Amino acid sequence: MSEPIDFYFDFSSPYGYLASEKIDELAARHGRTVSWRPILLGVVFKHTGAAPLTLVPLKGEYSVRDFSRSARFLGLPYKHPANFPLATQHAARAFYWFHDQDYEQACEPARAFAQAVFRALYVDGRDVSSLDVVLDLAAQQGVDRDILSEALAGAALKQRLKSECDAALAGGVFGSPYMIIDGEPFFGVDRLPQMDRWLTSGGF
Amino acid sequence: MSEPIDFYFDFSSPYGYLASEKIDELAARHGRTVSWRPILLGVVFKHTGAAPLTLVPLKGEYSVRDFSRSARFLGLPYKHPANFPLATQHAARAFYWFHDQDYEQACEPARAFAQAVFRALYVDGRDVSSLDVVLDLAAQQGVDRDILSEALAGAALKQRLKSECDAALAGGVFGSPYMIIDGEPFFGVDRLPQMDRWLTSGGF
Repeated sequence: MSEPIDFYFDFSSPYGYLASEKIDELAARHGRTVSWRPILLGVVFKHTGAAPLTLVPLKGEYSVRDFSRSARFLGLPYKHPANFPLATQHAARAFYWFHDQDYEQACEPARAFAQAVFRALYVDGRDVSSLDVVLDLAAQQGVDRDILSEALAGAALKQRLKSECDAALAGGVFGSPYMIIDGEPFFGVDRLPQMDRWLTSGGF
Repeated sequence: MSEPIDFYFDFSSPYGYLASEKIDELAARHGRTVSWRPILLGVVFKHTGAAPLTLVPLKGEYSVRDFSRSARFLGLPYKHPANFPLATQHAARAFYWFHDQDYEQACEPARAFAQAVFRALYVDGRDVSSLDVVLDLAAQQGVDRDILSEALAGAALKQRLKSECDAALAGGVFGSPYMIIDGEPFFGVDRLPQMDRWLTSGGF
């Protein structure tokens, strides 16, 4: 059995959203699964000195244009969020809560939740930095709001996300989306064609 | 007659080199020409606060790996320069000297010189930050070494490159390669597929 493809992203990353809509299908075509791993770019950027794309002079204006154009290029809907960039720790912690539940297939509800968060933000224009919105989206996946709310307020889930971010940094992750196939790193949704060839040929 | 595609790059940019090997053919397929415009990323980065890719923590290591892999993906030779990043003002000024000569087809010798510089750096491993190497490469294009050497020492050519960099910045250019098709900006060699579709459809 081949190793899953690691897929690191921040829910606040438009290119992460675009990759999220393509990566499972790409992996499946090559008999692979995907390990979704939300992180916080704020933590990463402290280490690399980078700033959110849209706050960089000149590059910011270009980026907003490129988000929409890249979405159209990939055949995906995209509406640039009014509140951007936004805090995503509630959504990321909720993801790991889903992930760590004792489901028979623990990854699937977490993945479905992640996709719901991305679409709420980039298609429906909802502010997923809000705890209430995150709880609403989780409830739509059949979760008890109060149980998740309590978990999100606790130290364990905060530590869980912190550990994920630390591990990502230690593994070289510096942005979103960042994918790893059998140790080979790929940064950016525009690397999907290279990933496709890599999976086809076992490297090139 | 359609407008030429503007192609901004720094000779020190590996992705600029990769784009340089593909852009003329891409443009020609759509009945377009390309206006090559070397700039200095150092000037641009002062404005945007960016740093050369290879000097950014984590991103630096990834980038060196990605330069070679992207070259293989595009079927191009690539050897990462021992001295990198490097100063490219001599090469860029020499380009504009070629460009401004009263040739019948002024762009072609400039383009050929630019391609020679890129290949000297990324294929043959020559240090094109050296004035001597730049003069050698120009001489190979049939230019009198002494005439160009004198021009490169003068204020006019320095001002010429400065004006190009200022105009690029004013036009929104924040990196290399940066291409503009009929007012639509594309950043990065990985945008060539989007440019191809844009030229096919007149936008998307």
